[in-house]
Amino acid sequence: MLEHLKEKVLKANKLLPKHNLVTFTWGNVSEIDRASGLMVIKPSGVEYDDMTASDMVVVDINTGKVVEGHLNPSSDTPTHVELYRQFPDIGGVVHTHSRNATTWAQAGCDIVPLGTTHADYFYGTIPCTRRMTEEEIKGEYELETGRVIVETFRKREIDPNMVPGVLVASHGPFVWGKDCLEAVHNAVVLEEVALMNFNSFIISPNSRPMQQVLIDKHFLRKHGKDAYYGQKK
Amino acid sequence: MLEHLKEKVLKANKLLPKHNLVTFTWGNVSEIDRASGLMVIKPSGVEYDDMTASDMVVVDINTGKVVEGHLNPSSDTPTHVELYRQFPDIGGVVHTHSRNATTWAQAGCDIVPLGTTHADYFYGTIPCTRRMTEEEIKGEYELETGRVIVETFRKREIDPNMVPGVLVASHGPFVWGKDCLEAVHNAVVLEEVALMNFNSFIISPNSRPMQQVLIDKHFLRKHGKDAYYGQKK
Amino acid sequence: MLEHLKEKVLKANKLLPKHNLVTFTWGNVSEIDRASGLMVIKPSGVEYDDMTASDMVVVDINTGKVVEGHLNPSSDTPTHVELYRQFPDIGGVVHTHSRNATTWAQAGCDIVPLGTTHADYFYGTIPCTRRMTEEEIKGEYELETGRVIVETFRKREIDPNMVPGVLVASHGPFVWGKDCLEAVHNAVVLEEVALMNFNSFIISPNSRPMQQVLIDKHFLRKHGKDAYYGQKK
Amino acid sequence: MLEHLKEKVLKANKLLPKHNLVTFTWGNVSEIDRASGLMVIKPSGVEYDDMTASDMVVVDINTGKVVEGHLNPSSDTPTHVELYRQFPDIGGVVHTHSRNATTWAQAGCDIVPLGTTHADYFYGTIPCTRRMTEEEIKGEYELETGRVIVETFRKREIDPNMVPGVLVASHGPFVWGKDCLEAVHNAVVLEEVALMNFNSFIISPNSRPMQQVLIDKHFLRKHGKDAYYGQKK
Repeated sequence: MLEHLKEKVLKANKLLPKHNLVTFTWGNVSEIDRASGLMVIKPSGVEYDDMTASDMVVVDINTGKVVEGHLNPSSDTPTHVELYRQFPDIGGVVHTHSRNATTWAQAGCDIVPLGTTHADYFYGTIPCTRRMTEEEIKGEYELETGRVIVETFRKREIDPNMVPGVLVASHGPFVWGKDCLEAVHNAVVLEEVALMNFNSFIISPNSRPMQQVLIDKHFLRKHGKDAYYGQKK
Repeated sequence: MLEHLKEKVLKANKLLPKHNLVTFTWGNVSEIDRASGLMVIKPSGVEYDDMTASDMVVVDINTGKVVEGHLNPSSDTPTHVELYRQFPDIGGVVHTHSRNATTWAQAGCDIVPLGTTHADYFYGTIPCTRRMTEEEIKGEYELETGRVIVETFRKREIDPNMVPGVLVASHGPFVWGKDCLEAVHNAVVLEEVALMNFNSFIISPNSRPMQQVLIDKHFLRKHGKDAYYGQKK
Repeated sequence: MLEHLKEKVLKANKLLPKHNLVTFTWGNVSEIDRASGLMVIKPSGVEYDDMTASDMVVVDINTGKVVEGHLNPSSDTPTHVELYRQFPDIGGVVHTHSRNATTWAQAGCDIVPLGTTHADYFYGTIPCTRRMTEEEIKGEYELETGRVIVETFRKREIDPNMVPGVLVASHGPFVWGKDCLEAVHNAVVLEEVALMNFNSFIISPNSRPMQQVLIDKHFLRKHGKDAYYGQKK
Repeated sequence: MLEHLKEKVLKANKLLPKHNLVTFTWGNVSEIDRASGLMVIKPSGVEYDDMTASDMVVVDINTGKVVEGHLNPSSDTPTHVELYRQFPDIGGVVHTHSRNATTWAQAGCDIVPLGTTHADYFYGTIPCTRRMTEEEIKGEYELETGRVIVETFRKREIDPNMVPGVLVASHGPFVWGKDCLEAVHNAVVLEEVALMNFNSFIISPNSRPMQQVLIDKHFLRKHGKDAYYGQKK
């Protein structure tokens, strides 16, 4: 079942240690097959070096249940499921505890756009969620984590297709994209932006967000119908 | 004597440079065989690349004396011995001068829990000891180092099985676990947490410790009888 | 056409990932053949690993048009062209989003000379441009980026042959040299200097610029007719 | 002439890039043969990868002249010579622009002892020199650099055998040892200590120097007649 997608999700998971986004097994990648509503995700707590495509777990996002796989899926599975349910245009999701992004999540602060590296991929502020309530934490915690992400985008009127990532307060980043490889790509960018913005604020606590017109220029020269960056496809 | 354990302790010691926890020979790992009361530890001042299992030194924790080995044991041996004597459930101990944890030890500050990375492994604040007294330093220094660690856990009512590590003021971290491999694993986590907490406080000097309920959630989903992270064993 | 130069520009581009100056495809190097007024530059959005000499694009700096090449040139091409037009002694240009230099650009701050590492390569302050206007950003943005760089050097009376680099506000560094390899070399130095100056100001917010006489000494022992550093050529 | 020593000095120079102490050719190591008063030093501006033992240059420390070698010696040669003349017990000298130590030199600040990593190798504060005068810089600059180092140790009554390194203000570190390999070893330690002390002061600007009794304990358990660290020799 979905053998090709399992290979792809395996590959995307193995990119996490390659890009220094994870320590030990602290990260997971999934991709959804929208036609069938089935998601392929990394198993829980398995070493990246040892993982094979057949270890990937298939989950039905309608029921949230495993439909194939001999291992438990990532404990963050309900968060992935909720994101696929509520953000219908996304195809891949990544969660890590990557250092720089997690640092911001722990501080409970948004990452405002300070430079074109940010604006090339994220069309504005990367939000940090509110803290979760005791009820949410004691309840269906991983599902509630997804819900607080969705709430953040809805309340702040941020389009998840334009800002493909979030910081969960006291926890770390979730990042997405049109497929699992783009999601990993965006996770690498977030990590880089998190570092540079952190340092810019140390140099100058008064660093100002970049101008909206410059955000428009950079985001739109890479994304959307008038993009002219890269090669014609 | 304890040939299998020597191989394991050798392997654990060689993980220290692999995980960038040590410069030169600045680190040591031991494991205890509780049945016999014998501890296997790295020799003092020997290069990791050159070490073999037969270089490991066997020490009796009741007498503190070497019972086998052609090299001197780590100069920190009496600290390891004291930890095994006073913390009866631990099986492995690591000492390093890893950069981030040592930075906190030099600043004389506890590492409070700011995020789930911390709470996945350490059930609350990682304490920093008081400074040692002149008497302690001039006396049986390495033994007294162990004693000040034990005092810290007792006085502050911290359970060493729930918080498997400490910062010795003006010195560096000691970390432990159920065996030497888990101790090294925890030492890697401590280093990562030390870095991220350091940076979170730079972003926001008002970064608040995470909620107790979130600490409970993360620690207990990985540890104890209701754990559901990873695969069934 | 210019096959030898394409090989050289390819090599210079491949040095960017080697020196950790780029993430993904975020950087580009060019060199000009002054005799013909033709510039060889990296194609847009192509992976460094996959690039070959025949992917390099040849652009006429008089017209700004591609004269050879099967791929689109870097989207920053008009910036390179403007620098070659206005700074007649330079032969190679590099643009990256390297972490430390970009950090300063995002903070909108000049890098003042604090030590001899700086003075060995940059004869004084490395300037940061003003922010670009809405008109410039919405107009011929990449050309205007070149113009704001040139304006910065003219208004502040900085000689681009003595200070071979600049920070574009909210964006990142452009660096140059007598050819593309020297430009990459200078980009590595800028990155190093950006890091050390950043940290020096953290240690001491009152860090003072070095004395002019020491800048003279170091720059002139490596550059110009009385240089005595290195080997006779 | 001194072929064995040339091999050793070559090896010590090649350790600099291995330990990430240098960018490009920014570092040099020498060792003296006290019997003959001849010093072997790296040539100026030569790549570490390309260097061979026969490229090493032999300099007479009495005259300061090259007595063998087909290349120019390091431009810092007169500084090395002055250190060998004035510090009669040292055998090897290293100069680098290593990031962390240079950061402190640029800030013009001493590195005070905050932890046992420092005290294991440096018996107290690592001093930063005063700024050099215009006369010194315009005169025999590299020789005067050596003189300001010596002045720093004499005026502040620091024993160069107990504190084997210095920061030259606005420049970078010089480090020494009983031979060139120990000098490189100490340069690695300085870099590590510079980083950790930097970070400790960020965590707590009120970080206090460690107690003198603890400095004594750590320095003397590794150095001098009562040392008990490592293996008997």
